[in-house]
Amino acid sequence: MIAPSFASRPRESCGVLGIYAPGTNVARLTFFGLYALQHRGQESAGIATSDGSRSYLHRGNGLVSHVFNEDHLKILQGHLAIGHNRYSTTGASRLRNSQPYLVETALGPLGVAHNGNLTNAAVLRRELLYGGVGLISSSDTEVISQMLAGAGGETWRERIGVLMDLAEGAYSLTILTRDAVYGVRDPWGFRPLCVGRLNDHGWVLASESSALATIGATFLREVRPGEVIRLDHTGMTAWQGVDPKSDRSLCVFEYIYFARPDSLLEGRSVHQVRRRLGERLAQEHPVDADMVIGVPDSATAHAIGYANQAGIPFGEVLIKNRYIGRTFIQPDDRLRRRGVALKFNPLPDLEGRGKRIIMVDDSIVRGNTSRAIVDLVRQAGAAEVHMRVASPPIRHPCFMGVDMSTHEELIAARMEVGEVASHIGADSLQYLSVEGLLEAVEAEKGGYCLACFTGEYPVPAVAAIGKDMFESW
Amino acid sequence: MIAPSFASRPRESCGVLGIYAPGTNVARLTFFGLYALQHRGQESAGIATSDGSRSYLHRGNGLVSHVFNEDHLKILQGHLAIGHNRYSTTGASRLRNSQPYLVETALGPLGVAHNGNLTNAAVLRRELLYGGVGLISSSDTEVISQMLAGAGGETWRERIGVLMDLAEGAYSLTILTRDAVYGVRDPWGFRPLCVGRLNDHGWVLASESSALATIGATFLREVRPGEVIRLDHTGMTAWQGVDPKSDRSLCVFEYIYFARPDSLLEGRSVHQVRRRLGERLAQEHPVDADMVIGVPDSATAHAIGYANQAGIPFGEVLIKNRYIGRTFIQPDDRLRRRGVALKFNPLPDLEGRGKRIIMVDDSIVRGNTSRAIVDLVRQAGAAEVHMRVASPPIRHPCFMGVDMSTHEELIAARMEVGEVASHIGADSLQYLSVEGLLEAVEAEKGGYCLACFTGEYPVPAVAAIGKDMFESW
Amino acid sequence: MIAPSFASRPRESCGVLGIYAPGTNVARLTFFGLYALQHRGQESAGIATSDGSRSYLHRGNGLVSHVFNEDHLKILQGHLAIGHNRYSTTGASRLRNSQPYLVETALGPLGVAHNGNLTNAAVLRRELLYGGVGLISSSDTEVISQMLAGAGGETWRERIGVLMDLAEGAYSLTILTRDAVYGVRDPWGFRPLCVGRLNDHGWVLASESSALATIGATFLREVRPGEVIRLDHTGMTAWQGVDPKSDRSLCVFEYIYFARPDSLLEGRSVHQVRRRLGERLAQEHPVDADMVIGVPDSATAHAIGYANQAGIPFGEVLIKNRYIGRTFIQPDDRLRRRGVALKFNPLPDLEGRGKRIIMVDDSIVRGNTSRAIVDLVRQAGAAEVHMRVASPPIRHPCFMGVDMSTHEELIAARMEVGEVASHIGADSLQYLSVEGLLEAVEAEKGGYCLACFTGEYPVPAVAAIGKDMFESW
Amino acid sequence: MIAPSFASRPRESCGVLGIYAPGTNVARLTFFGLYALQHRGQESAGIATSDGSRSYLHRGNGLVSHVFNEDHLKILQGHLAIGHNRYSTTGASRLRNSQPYLVETALGPLGVAHNGNLTNAAVLRRELLYGGVGLISSSDTEVISQMLAGAGGETWRERIGVLMDLAEGAYSLTILTRDAVYGVRDPWGFRPLCVGRLNDHGWVLASESSALATIGATFLREVRPGEVIRLDHTGMTAWQGVDPKSDRSLCVFEYIYFARPDSLLEGRSVHQVRRRLGERLAQEHPVDADMVIGVPDSATAHAIGYANQAGIPFGEVLIKNRYIGRTFIQPDDRLRRRGVALKFNPLPDLEGRGKRIIMVDDSIVRGNTSRAIVDLVRQAGAAEVHMRVASPPIRHPCFMGVDMSTHEELIAARMEVGEVASHIGADSLQYLSVEGLLEAVEAEKGGYCLACFTGEYPVPAVAAIGKDMFESW
Repeated sequence: MIAPSFASRPRESCGVLGIYAPGTNVARLTFFGLYALQHRGQESAGIATSDGSRSYLHRGNGLVSHVFNEDHLKILQGHLAIGHNRYSTTGASRLRNSQPYLVETALGPLGVAHNGNLTNAAVLRRELLYGGVGLISSSDTEVISQMLAGAGGETWRERIGVLMDLAEGAYSLTILTRDAVYGVRDPWGFRPLCVGRLNDHGWVLASESSALATIGATFLREVRPGEVIRLDHTGMTAWQGVDPKSDRSLCVFEYIYFARPDSLLEGRSVHQVRRRLGERLAQEHPVDADMVIGVPDSATAHAIGYANQAGIPFGEVLIKNRYIGRTFIQPDDRLRRRGVALKFNPLPDLEGRGKRIIMVDDSIVRGNTSRAIVDLVRQAGAAEVHMRVASPPIRHPCFMGVDMSTHEELIAARMEVGEVASHIGADSLQYLSVEGLLEAVEAEKGGYCLACFTGEYPVPAVAAIGKDMFESW
Repeated sequence: MIAPSFASRPRESCGVLGIYAPGTNVARLTFFGLYALQHRGQESAGIATSDGSRSYLHRGNGLVSHVFNEDHLKILQGHLAIGHNRYSTTGASRLRNSQPYLVETALGPLGVAHNGNLTNAAVLRRELLYGGVGLISSSDTEVISQMLAGAGGETWRERIGVLMDLAEGAYSLTILTRDAVYGVRDPWGFRPLCVGRLNDHGWVLASESSALATIGATFLREVRPGEVIRLDHTGMTAWQGVDPKSDRSLCVFEYIYFARPDSLLEGRSVHQVRRRLGERLAQEHPVDADMVIGVPDSATAHAIGYANQAGIPFGEVLIKNRYIGRTFIQPDDRLRRRGVALKFNPLPDLEGRGKRIIMVDDSIVRGNTSRAIVDLVRQAGAAEVHMRVASPPIRHPCFMGVDMSTHEELIAARMEVGEVASHIGADSLQYLSVEGLLEAVEAEKGGYCLACFTGEYPVPAVAAIGKDMFESW
Repeated sequence: MIAPSFASRPRESCGVLGIYAPGTNVARLTFFGLYALQHRGQESAGIATSDGSRSYLHRGNGLVSHVFNEDHLKILQGHLAIGHNRYSTTGASRLRNSQPYLVETALGPLGVAHNGNLTNAAVLRRELLYGGVGLISSSDTEVISQMLAGAGGETWRERIGVLMDLAEGAYSLTILTRDAVYGVRDPWGFRPLCVGRLNDHGWVLASESSALATIGATFLREVRPGEVIRLDHTGMTAWQGVDPKSDRSLCVFEYIYFARPDSLLEGRSVHQVRRRLGERLAQEHPVDADMVIGVPDSATAHAIGYANQAGIPFGEVLIKNRYIGRTFIQPDDRLRRRGVALKFNPLPDLEGRGKRIIMVDDSIVRGNTSRAIVDLVRQAGAAEVHMRVASPPIRHPCFMGVDMSTHEELIAARMEVGEVASHIGADSLQYLSVEGLLEAVEAEKGGYCLACFTGEYPVPAVAAIGKDMFESW
Repeated sequence: MIAPSFASRPRESCGVLGIYAPGTNVARLTFFGLYALQHRGQESAGIATSDGSRSYLHRGNGLVSHVFNEDHLKILQGHLAIGHNRYSTTGASRLRNSQPYLVETALGPLGVAHNGNLTNAAVLRRELLYGGVGLISSSDTEVISQMLAGAGGETWRERIGVLMDLAEGAYSLTILTRDAVYGVRDPWGFRPLCVGRLNDHGWVLASESSALATIGATFLREVRPGEVIRLDHTGMTAWQGVDPKSDRSLCVFEYIYFARPDSLLEGRSVHQVRRRLGERLAQEHPVDADMVIGVPDSATAHAIGYANQAGIPFGEVLIKNRYIGRTFIQPDDRLRRRGVALKFNPLPDLEGRGKRIIMVDDSIVRGNTSRAIVDLVRQAGAAEVHMRVASPPIRHPCFMGVDMSTHEELIAARMEVGEVASHIGADSLQYLSVEGLLEAVEAEKGGYCLACFTGEYPVPAVAAIGKDMFESW
């Protein structure tokens, strides 16, 4: 468990990877690819490989660097691999829920790594159970694996088609079979997935282009909504597994917060979009001030954009502890009152003394961190603190895999903007408009899931997914 | 891995336990029950419980005392439990293969703990795969669980019936559902299973009666071949799940070696049977000598029986290192030549000097330990070493779950008795006859699996079961 | 922590080993030597080596097999080594207190492994502290090491002499320097120490001869009280470091319980002495009965001796759980009432039903185990239980390293024999006399420490040793 | 081990902490204080406490958050504590070398935590050895502890005086005794140390003021060179333990790199000094360019200063992987060629395409990281890369505890600036002058150790300290 105050940003579940590289042992490359996707999930990591006849799997809890050692890489033989980083959206970390999921099937071994959330998982799960399949975990990934194992069809291509006909919601998958790696993206395109070339003979599928860059692969293109990519000895083959939905719906939070700034999304630099978000925010909500700061490190680019646009100097007042690790040790009451001081420290008040400060954050979910940060900035001597948020108020829960699933936890669902401002103790608070957001993304029209801002869900919202019916390890 | 010389006795896979005790947290009791069954498997251990609505599982590699701590017991809520000790018959220890196996099904949670080996597992496995179920392990227990999950029938009773109609070979099972614990024994009765009363309200199922005694339960009776026992709020209910086979086939090695001497089997004291095996051996194969010794600790009772019958003093020449633990450190060449000295030490030659010694062992599988032990006894100064084995020559592999599955590894399948004697360096070697064995057991006629001695298998021997198609952790 | 009922025998602290074997890496040999001495201490283990210029150390908590792996042996370079098994007499296991202790000194590296207890440790400790040395642990071994480091004298021989002049109480030491291994035994000879030949060029020092046998060394002789042995490139050199005390005082419990039965002590087989103890006990305290049993495993030889002498059949009623491991899990109240059933199980009452049973134990310290065992034997159906103890009543605490240091914990110090009998629930109870003990040992006259029986201490008893002044890890 | 490219910045050894807070359990507060000093050492961490009579210690390898759990805090009783974070300057991490070091002495328990390096450690060590003290480690801290244990003087005050008379080099110490905590700073003041007030009754000593802020203490003042601070029930007492040296010598790298930006040093904000270093660098070495970037995260402030001064926009091209953990897995050859891509990724070339970029770094030690980073910036499309370093060339090894102890490893000691430029592939390379450095620090005149730049050592450089004479764990 992280100390409470450390976990107040929207959290996403998972990064996926797939590699086909004949003549190579790909486990090492997969390791470094997962290393580059570590920001998408720190709960558990895993790699499954195939050497064309047998399959191998290693998974564990913790960071990629913690889960794997050289002995594990030696076991992970083969030239095909999929990998996964997971952020648990449940409280406990259960090895049983970690990925990839690897099963034997009538068509041979099958491995699945999944980023997203099926909105009809409960229905699919019930169908499997009543179809006579016992399930060992509460994960969508096991549901997907057993659906593929039990789907009609003599080929994996057919079975993937069946899956895509039935599954609803967000899924970017990499799939390992005996002799091929597949990439599958849901027809709405909620979660990113792209493909690259690895020197002359290999290909790589990854959640983000930055993972390609890290392992020396060249970005080719994104996988299209509803598309399936197969990588095998015939090269790369692509087809529409299911028609793309008319309301294409990339999660806009990938731009705002999730993706690495050095990733390319839809041909755009995530870093540049973040600067434009800040610029646009400055246009919509200017305020007279002496300094612009960002909440480190995620809002730095947004803050630089705001500062440049506003012509107000960019500065630093909050310092982030670089070496913070997970601890189960709780602060006592006095320390608790000091709140986030463990994660952020204000510069001595020489820095901010008497200044009017604009503090830019990328988003506000629950509001507790914001409150503590405003307090820290005041401790640093600020005369005024104006909070500017580079995304609209989050008023609706997400059912597509982002860890904000109830109205209650969303401060903007419970309070007006003015109330939020006084709750967090800011002199003023303004959010970017939805229009501003889309303009900054340079989206011509639609194409994004904005449900958490607007309440308009691309797929019908479903009953809350039941908790585990059993606890195991 | 144990140093090679430490593993040359027939090894069996698994002890099972099941407890229903309303108003109690049964995890602790299950822990101590498994503790008492530790001799049946040291590879991994696990407990699954149910509190009537949710189920809980904890498993791990190693001894029961290593796998569980107080925190685990706290998690394992409920008044119903099953437990398992496992001896891996595969080389590697894989957590994935550990038991109990717990799945969610259309009828709620299902846990299975298994002692035995299905002879038609490959066929059943294939049927599941082609029926569309993906399998994560190579264990029979997953096969049994998925068969129960997918069997027709609205009740567990019906489904267990379906399983018993299809499964062939050895299986003593304890099964956990939301509100009941079941005990199931195959129609041949290969492996033992008994039931006892726990004070006024509870019942216990266990592989051996000694586990009942350890936790303070009173032995009621053995579960009959083909019988099913259900323990729930209505008390204990029993029925024949399938007719018992006419050729009842308890594994006779339970008497010779596997079971704890303080267990009761078929109303007989295992300890007393072992003494009678020694007595009978003395009648069949007397030899003039000064002292009778047993290979410690497993052949002590057999040797005392031999000594008493022969009127030759019982003595000790070999001492077993009581604190031996698993080590991966290999002896170097010199130490290797000294062989089993790490496990056994001879008493100084004052003890055996110039004596003619009868050394009684319970059985010989591969012969390498015997050779080293004979050598140690000579080091202790023995003038003659006469080996007497309290069971017949093992000439045929076992397909019912004992770890001796190929002819090649069985020394008596490759050599005549005389050759074995000179191979192990004994002055003489004699085995108990099959008739003598049955008489010592006081078996009136038949009723036992003697396949490893006679080659007459109660169920058709099947093709060797394939290795894992994947390696995982 | 072991469950309380598992720890009621006198416990001794430590086995020591020393090897000099030019041209060999001795770490592996030392490992297997410690393996053979495991019965003398299971708390921690360690090995220190020297390659003639540098020294190396690895220590850890737990069994030898747990503490060392191949990587550790690779680090432990060199042809000189000392090793140590430790039984903590304090409640907590502290790595800081584990041995060998290795320090740099003006004469180069110095390693010390110690079996025994200094009776004037508090005085020596104070002298070191006031002499300006800071001490990191509460162990005598650190005291000995710092005394050697600070003693006058240009050679280790001189310094060891100084140490022996000052130290009082029990100490069998192995000492490692840059280019030699020393064996040192206190002038009373409280604890055993012997030396053997390892093929042509090497020598081995060990607490017991059985360790020599295990690693293929030939027993030469025991180290004499007050003697020092040096093993180096000049071969084996021996001298009296200090005159032997007139009242030679080998701890007689080595014969009764501590030593391995396959060890030779003073030319006598420990196993044979134990049989004679039983024989003599039968002569002193006969009783009409049907069966003689021993408390397994430590009193088996004593019981066989009793049975042979009395002409009453030797049998088994109690079975010891062979796979017991350390557990922190406590039995609940009901299980606690069942007491030692976790360690011992009685055979079913078929075995002992209606019989009059003589139960032989090697010794009684606190009495709680005895009480529980008598109860178990009654559960097995015994009509009468006559307890016979193969050593005299323990009425006085030990200050020479055996874990029974207060009068309060000794049942025979608080109660008359008749009271003890009814406390443990036996129909009768008799102890061996001191004379009988000495006769069984074949001691002509004196030569043994019998202080726990007689209260006559070879060295003056001292104030209880202070607890640690600090706790660390 | 960290992958080679991850370790190319000057590294310092250690942060120290001391707390006196009557009526409180200070272990938790100490934990969070160490948490705030984590940047000063990640190799091991430890806390020693005293409750006025007994002392307690827990130490371990790894981050503070890894070393301690709630159970450890419970053991660490008392209202006095010292703590330590260590960066090993040796290759291996040895628990034996971890701190604090706790010993029993004639004056009671003594704990020592040390930041710095004694330049005459070899001499002091020899004196201890020849004085008859055995040493278990190669650490200066043990030397200091044994000197204090053996120093003349009836009080700790006297003994600390003796130590300060003899010790040469860098030492900022916190010392724990039974009833007081001391802070000691060497007479040159090489390493920082400050003291703060903890609400009404307590005091805190810490390497940096940011640790005070984190745990809610108020900064009082710095400990003066040669000064000793005692915290006990009489409050805070201060005296000169030894006269300050005329050539006061704070390590200037504390400003450049080591200290947290939110710390105050000599009344100056470290963050502001870093900005001024950048401003001054821009004045000394202007160049025509389109964008200024900093090597994240350590040179961000310097780069912002440069950008503001030069009137060139500040931007980002390199992104640092925020979740990097220690891994033993080595990149294969292809990945190795890609070098630091695992730690830094360039933004896609949209960002830097065709731009002339000024890259500001805080310092260059070995040059290998610089080379890789320049390459990454070129991959991002930069037309020109001008390297500007906010400190002078490092040409001389440090003997005061910074991990750059040989000329060979210092690129500026082997090459002229022009050669370095072409070695790292930069279009131009300029370093800040020593004068510029001092001006940015606002040092009036002298007062700083600049030895690594100038070769003028405040204390005589000594022979390299020998390697360990033994290896242990």
